[in-house]
Amino acid sequence: MSLHYPAAPQDWRRLAARRLPRFLFDYIDGGANDERTLAANVDDLAALRLRQRVLVDVAQVDTRATLAGQPCALPLALAPIGLAGMAARRGEAQAARAAHAAGVPFTLSTVSICPLAEVAAASVPPWFQLYMLRDRGAVRALLDDAWAAGCRTLVFTVDLPLPGMRLRDIRHGMAASGARPALLRAAQVLARPGWVWNVALRGKPLRFGNLTAQVPGARDLNAFKAWVDAQFDPGVTWKDIEWLRGQWKGRLLLKGILDVEDARAAVAVGAEGIVVSNHGGRQLDSVASTAAKLPAIAQAVGAQAEVLVDSGVRGGVDVFKALALGARGVLVGRPWVWALAAQGEAGVRTLLAQWQRELLLAMTLAGVTRTADIGPRHLDTDS
Amino acid sequence: MSLHYPAAPQDWRRLAARRLPRFLFDYIDGGANDERTLAANVDDLAALRLRQRVLVDVAQVDTRATLAGQPCALPLALAPIGLAGMAARRGEAQAARAAHAAGVPFTLSTVSICPLAEVAAASVPPWFQLYMLRDRGAVRALLDDAWAAGCRTLVFTVDLPLPGMRLRDIRHGMAASGARPALLRAAQVLARPGWVWNVALRGKPLRFGNLTAQVPGARDLNAFKAWVDAQFDPGVTWKDIEWLRGQWKGRLLLKGILDVEDARAAVAVGAEGIVVSNHGGRQLDSVASTAAKLPAIAQAVGAQAEVLVDSGVRGGVDVFKALALGARGVLVGRPWVWALAAQGEAGVRTLLAQWQRELLLAMTLAGVTRTADIGPRHLDTDS
Amino acid sequence: MSLHYPAAPQDWRRLAARRLPRFLFDYIDGGANDERTLAANVDDLAALRLRQRVLVDVAQVDTRATLAGQPCALPLALAPIGLAGMAARRGEAQAARAAHAAGVPFTLSTVSICPLAEVAAASVPPWFQLYMLRDRGAVRALLDDAWAAGCRTLVFTVDLPLPGMRLRDIRHGMAASGARPALLRAAQVLARPGWVWNVALRGKPLRFGNLTAQVPGARDLNAFKAWVDAQFDPGVTWKDIEWLRGQWKGRLLLKGILDVEDARAAVAVGAEGIVVSNHGGRQLDSVASTAAKLPAIAQAVGAQAEVLVDSGVRGGVDVFKALALGARGVLVGRPWVWALAAQGEAGVRTLLAQWQRELLLAMTLAGVTRTADIGPRHLDTDS
Amino acid sequence: MSLHYPAAPQDWRRLAARRLPRFLFDYIDGGANDERTLAANVDDLAALRLRQRVLVDVAQVDTRATLAGQPCALPLALAPIGLAGMAARRGEAQAARAAHAAGVPFTLSTVSICPLAEVAAASVPPWFQLYMLRDRGAVRALLDDAWAAGCRTLVFTVDLPLPGMRLRDIRHGMAASGARPALLRAAQVLARPGWVWNVALRGKPLRFGNLTAQVPGARDLNAFKAWVDAQFDPGVTWKDIEWLRGQWKGRLLLKGILDVEDARAAVAVGAEGIVVSNHGGRQLDSVASTAAKLPAIAQAVGAQAEVLVDSGVRGGVDVFKALALGARGVLVGRPWVWALAAQGEAGVRTLLAQWQRELLLAMTLAGVTRTADIGPRHLDTDS
Ligand SMILES: Cc1cc2nc3c(=O)[nH]c(=O)nc-3n(C[C@H](O)[C@H](O)[C@H](O)COP(=O)(O)O)c2cc1C
Ligand SMILES: Cc1cc2nc3c(=O)[nH]c(=O)nc-3n(C[C@H](O)[C@H](O)[C@H](O)COP(=O)(O)O)c2cc1C
Ligand SMILES: Cc1cc2nc3c(=O)[nH]c(=O)nc-3n(C[C@H](O)[C@H](O)[C@H](O)COP(=O)(O)O)c2cc1C
Ligand SMILES: Cc1cc2nc3c(=O)[nH]c(=O)nc-3n(C[C@H](O)[C@H](O)[C@H](O)COP(=O)(O)O)c2cc1C
Repeated sequence: MSLHYPAAPQDWRRLAARRLPRFLFDYIDGGANDERTLAANVDDLAALRLRQRVLVDVAQVDTRATLAGQPCALPLALAPIGLAGMAARRGEAQAARAAHAAGVPFTLSTVSICPLAEVAAASVPPWFQLYMLRDRGAVRALLDDAWAAGCRTLVFTVDLPLPGMRLRDIRHGMAASGARPALLRAAQVLARPGWVWNVALRGKPLRFGNLTAQVPGARDLNAFKAWVDAQFDPGVTWKDIEWLRGQWKGRLLLKGILDVEDARAAVAVGAEGIVVSNHGGRQLDSVASTAAKLPAIAQAVGAQAEVLVDSGVRGGVDVFKALALGARGVLVGRPWVWALAAQGEAGVRTLLAQWQRELLLAMTLAGVTRTADIGPRHLDTDS
Repeated sequence: MSLHYPAAPQDWRRLAARRLPRFLFDYIDGGANDERTLAANVDDLAALRLRQRVLVDVAQVDTRATLAGQPCALPLALAPIGLAGMAARRGEAQAARAAHAAGVPFTLSTVSICPLAEVAAASVPPWFQLYMLRDRGAVRALLDDAWAAGCRTLVFTVDLPLPGMRLRDIRHGMAASGARPALLRAAQVLARPGWVWNVALRGKPLRFGNLTAQVPGARDLNAFKAWVDAQFDPGVTWKDIEWLRGQWKGRLLLKGILDVEDARAAVAVGAEGIVVSNHGGRQLDSVASTAAKLPAIAQAVGAQAEVLVDSGVRGGVDVFKALALGARGVLVGRPWVWALAAQGEAGVRTLLAQWQRELLLAMTLAGVTRTADIGPRHLDTDS
Repeated sequence: MSLHYPAAPQDWRRLAARRLPRFLFDYIDGGANDERTLAANVDDLAALRLRQRVLVDVAQVDTRATLAGQPCALPLALAPIGLAGMAARRGEAQAARAAHAAGVPFTLSTVSICPLAEVAAASVPPWFQLYMLRDRGAVRALLDDAWAAGCRTLVFTVDLPLPGMRLRDIRHGMAASGARPALLRAAQVLARPGWVWNVALRGKPLRFGNLTAQVPGARDLNAFKAWVDAQFDPGVTWKDIEWLRGQWKGRLLLKGILDVEDARAAVAVGAEGIVVSNHGGRQLDSVASTAAKLPAIAQAVGAQAEVLVDSGVRGGVDVFKALALGARGVLVGRPWVWALAAQGEAGVRTLLAQWQRELLLAMTLAGVTRTADIGPRHLDTDS
Repeated sequence: MSLHYPAAPQDWRRLAARRLPRFLFDYIDGGANDERTLAANVDDLAALRLRQRVLVDVAQVDTRATLAGQPCALPLALAPIGLAGMAARRGEAQAARAAHAAGVPFTLSTVSICPLAEVAAASVPPWFQLYMLRDRGAVRALLDDAWAAGCRTLVFTVDLPLPGMRLRDIRHGMAASGARPALLRAAQVLARPGWVWNVALRGKPLRFGNLTAQVPGARDLNAFKAWVDAQFDPGVTWKDIEWLRGQWKGRLLLKGILDVEDARAAVAVGAEGIVVSNHGGRQLDSVASTAAKLPAIAQAVGAQAEVLVDSGVRGGVDVFKALALGARGVLVGRPWVWALAAQGEAGVRTLLAQWQRELLLAMTLAGVTRTADIGPRHLDTDS
């Protein structure tokens, strides 16, 4: 297939594979275990059928939406991706600029390369994603930093009590210590001199921008893993969310909800919204796709909270489908990192422009002119 | 697989791939986005099961039918294909001759290479396909031309308020401007010297035969895209169809209906027929196959209007199935263009002869001797 | 996959592909159109689930059965295969010997290479398969020949009013005339010198052994096609079967029944049995598999007539399944021809020994000791 | 895929393929006939969906369980694998050591290479697996040996009245006699010099450790087959199990139950437990997967007997699923032999550590802290 003009996430993905060291590409690309949930996320969305309607007046189709109180050109935001800054020079800053240009929010991961301040300076204050750490003082400090940087939306991730079994990482020896795995990775790095020059050398410093206090010597994925193992707290419960709620004055979105009962609890604890997510199939392989779980959750809590969804969304038609299933908007994960790795900020811009065109086209052919009007009746359930 | 003697559309397709520049083949072959609807069109027809009956007297099987008031040797017509004239020298004229020889109607696209007059002169007046243009005067002029050329059946296409996202075209840089994409295409053209000689040089002029007034400088697919973007009117509604109905004294078929409600509206507005179609999966990827939508539509309006169907029909057995699902006849899309690209008029003739034999055989083994008698009872719904 | 010791039909098939000229292999291997019914035959049997039972006394498992009044070592017979004698030197005689050694009936096709007398002399009088010909005198003569040769079971084939669309044959130019297709086939023949020596030269005469009177000059597949086109009678109805019934004193099995109503008619007309068959998927592509149709047919007429089945049976486990679905026995088609092409008589013997072992094993693990006791309760319908 | 750091059974399998002579790898890897049950075992487990729950306190997840009265670090035991000692030098002893280190039971096959005493000495007394032999004196002697060696759990296998049709073995000529198949196998052996040195030479003696009395000259797989054919008794019934029950004072598990009625009979005859198994798809191809049969069986007899399951379990998530379907624990078959072949004792240890981590993670993300609490409510049956 011609890759001169990437047209879809799969094209961006292939371009990313050509530019990134293999272990880094696999870190981004992979999911837990046999990657069945990863595949189900994509397939279940793809399998949904839409109704085509004709001769409705679709001269004025409007793709805008409001997410977390913020007007957006499209009903989507970029998902938090840890270490995205390894994919391109000062990667999160580039992506944030592209998102801003396209009129959509960017979410910065706790474990980003670029610090909050750098990203905010490059564009506008992003949404900020946080994990619960054992050291609650550190959590408070991060919340304060975020507020100070202008962030008003906190995306708090609840589906990572432990990092998932990512077999690709194990195969690359990410979990192994000693010289051998390091050598294997070095060989993969050397096979991508462009990346070495652009990212590793000219993109310095490659450390966890928001955690320089917490993870001082962090220089690679292993250090990240070690820190996560030490700091991530599997003992977190809804009580801790109540505490967090008290700490944060802005909007709170709980990310990683996949069960109706947990969605109800999220509302009860005072979250303004949730992100229905299985972490892109990176945590428990065998859980259902988000497309399968979304309708019941949206039905249960959609009136009280803003329901976003991610995992497997791969284009403007999928955005349409997510809305038809009851979501207010979506987060985009891997696709933006692939585009970033492929062509930096310009790549992310092109990707977002393509998705906008696709969403517009889907609305046009479904005969609906406003995103808020997209709903179950646009799904074809007869065939 | 041996391609010495093409036996089925897939063989013709492969032969076409060998003769056409890649971007042109992909323009014909491709569908919207991930081409799932394109695949579903073919697969859903293929999955239908027929009942075999034996020892019925099938000495006299008659494949004839009447479509749009016109007696036909088979219940099928060739679908309108824009730019088909790029596939072979004066392509539409060749195909129209083959259709005439086989006793079936040919439909000329608005955006054909050969003008109406040339096609009519080569055989008989074809059916004429029209898109709604912003410039209603131009529409009226085209209608007048068609009537003057002897056309009495107008196929008005309603499922293209905007052109679909055809990723293959984007990958070839069809949407990109500048020297680079042009060079890439030039390389693909030079790889097919036979095509250059036969079509590009000896097939001149390669412009939109019916639109020389409207698109004067049109010389390539890009110009076509530009004109479509400018002229196609997403604001068209049923009101405009009423207007059109008033303008056209012949038969009017609305092409691109996929929903029962739209089918009912078509009848209400006075169309003599509809073509159940998703434009061969080229518009909104994710809509259902026509095989899935046809039965309910035929049920709803089959008594008041002539129901034709296209998209995914790939042989005489599929024609039989379409009739069993309730259609009066089918339009054939890509297959005839593949055969045309492969062997010109002779190719289309051979293709049609093969389909006739297949239909005859299907009728023989199903134990039915007249096309009008084909119906749901010939489908095997138990297994 | 190692092919030193063929273990299953797929292995025999691959060995046959190495020994036969391509067009001949494809003639045997192929089905109608896209070969979906061909695939469904195999897949639907394969998808059936059996119940495993343990600790039943299976020390004495008996695979014998009675088919058409004849005691058989296994509930199967070799199906009639036209031109099987092209697959190995005096092929039908070899296969008949192997069948006799294995204790199962052999069915000789109307259009065999070896004449009835040769086959009967090589082993015992086979079952004889007949097609209805326009020339009823010829039919009577063939019936007389069969009776004289000792045949007492007539397999009358009703699903070939016209030969099916076998695309592989068309691709090889079997339907085309002139020097070119002949040359193409000649090249394929020359690529198999072993076959030329063993079959074409030492296996002479290669003509239709039973039709030397009717098709005097028949020397190749083309002549066969021509004769079939001329002689096969699509006007045959149940009336003609009544006539036939009057002509034949032995047992009459109608082969090619796929519909309950046709099965009932077969009983009404006095047939002792039927073969539920879709001709191995060689006639109307899109009809259901025989596994899908068998249960209802066996239910409807199993008490009055002997119900055999063929198409897609690929081993002893499939034989078990066919019986569990209600059949008394099966016909084996392509597998025996593959084994014959691969290793002649010895190949067919080995194949039959493997199937016997498989059937025995299936009975052992299902906990049933007599073929007559195999029934629906051995199917696992819960999972 | 990188195989430097094997992460999952498929990786271990590929490493095993590189180290073992082909026929030996295929003996371990293969199943009966077309290996559909083999595939279904894996696929049906994989297709089960789990519910993800968040913000439950999962700081203390405990993977321990009690199997056959024995405390285990994980709810699993290594399944009995005949000839496992051919996969690595003194293979069963190595695997038993790894199992002991990981805190799980090891089951020694009747037809192991290492004798019971050697295995017991290397670690602790294993579970002992037995087949019924025609010579009941030999059975009694084996039971006495096992008891003397300290074994207290007897796994009695009931699904092998005859060995299944393993096509791969036939293809390698395992069933054929004479010089040719021996030569073919010798060539495969010579292609694995590492195996020759480590296993064939330094791993001597390669004979059936527990059967030196019964199969004195046993030196290869053929001798095994011959002995099985002679000694395995298809006439065994529930009466014989009653007899066996009287002979054995320890725990008795009947292995190879796949039907609810047989499970009930097992309880009635006094077995403490059963292993729901289809012998890893090696016996009757076409029986259902164990995942399909387990729930009804666990429902029927789970209260009276310990229900274990094997066949297709491929990781810690599968262990979780088996428990959710109603099993108390699982047996692991091929995976441990692959790991053993790949890296000996260390391989089996690594494998078990990976499975423990996966089970722990699955429990963490499902929000359950004790294996005894895993149940149907952890399955996601809505999607
Ligand atoms: C490489 C990678 C890193 C991620 N890092 C984070 C993270 O740091 N925080 C977080 O909440 N989610 C993280 N996620 C999950 C994403 O935010 C998002 O839920 C997921 O990617 C959506 O699935 P998709 O990639 O199929 O679109 C990460 C995902 C990937 C692929
Ligand atoms: C290359 C191409 C060009 C087409 N151009 C037109 C067109 O100009 N007008 C129109 O109404 N439909 C057009 N169609 C749609 C066809 O008329 C028809 O609906 C479709 O091809 C049927 O699907 P099939 O190709 O699977 O048979 C075009 C289709 C293709 C493949
Ligand atoms: C090469 C070939 C030739 C055949 N010729 C005849 C024939 O002459 N008469 C007939 O009744 N059936 C004929 N059949 C059909 C077989 O008798 C049988 O119905 C079919 O092969 C069963 O399907 P299977 O091949 O999948 O087992 C033929 C089938 C094949 C494959
Ligand atoms: C190579 C091999 C040898 C086996 N030998 C025995 C055996 O001697 N006794 C027994 O009870 N089961 C035997 N089994 C069956 C296993 O104990 C177990 O039921 C099966 O392997 C489980 O399926 P799995 O391999 O998919 O996990 C054997 C299985 C394999 C693959």
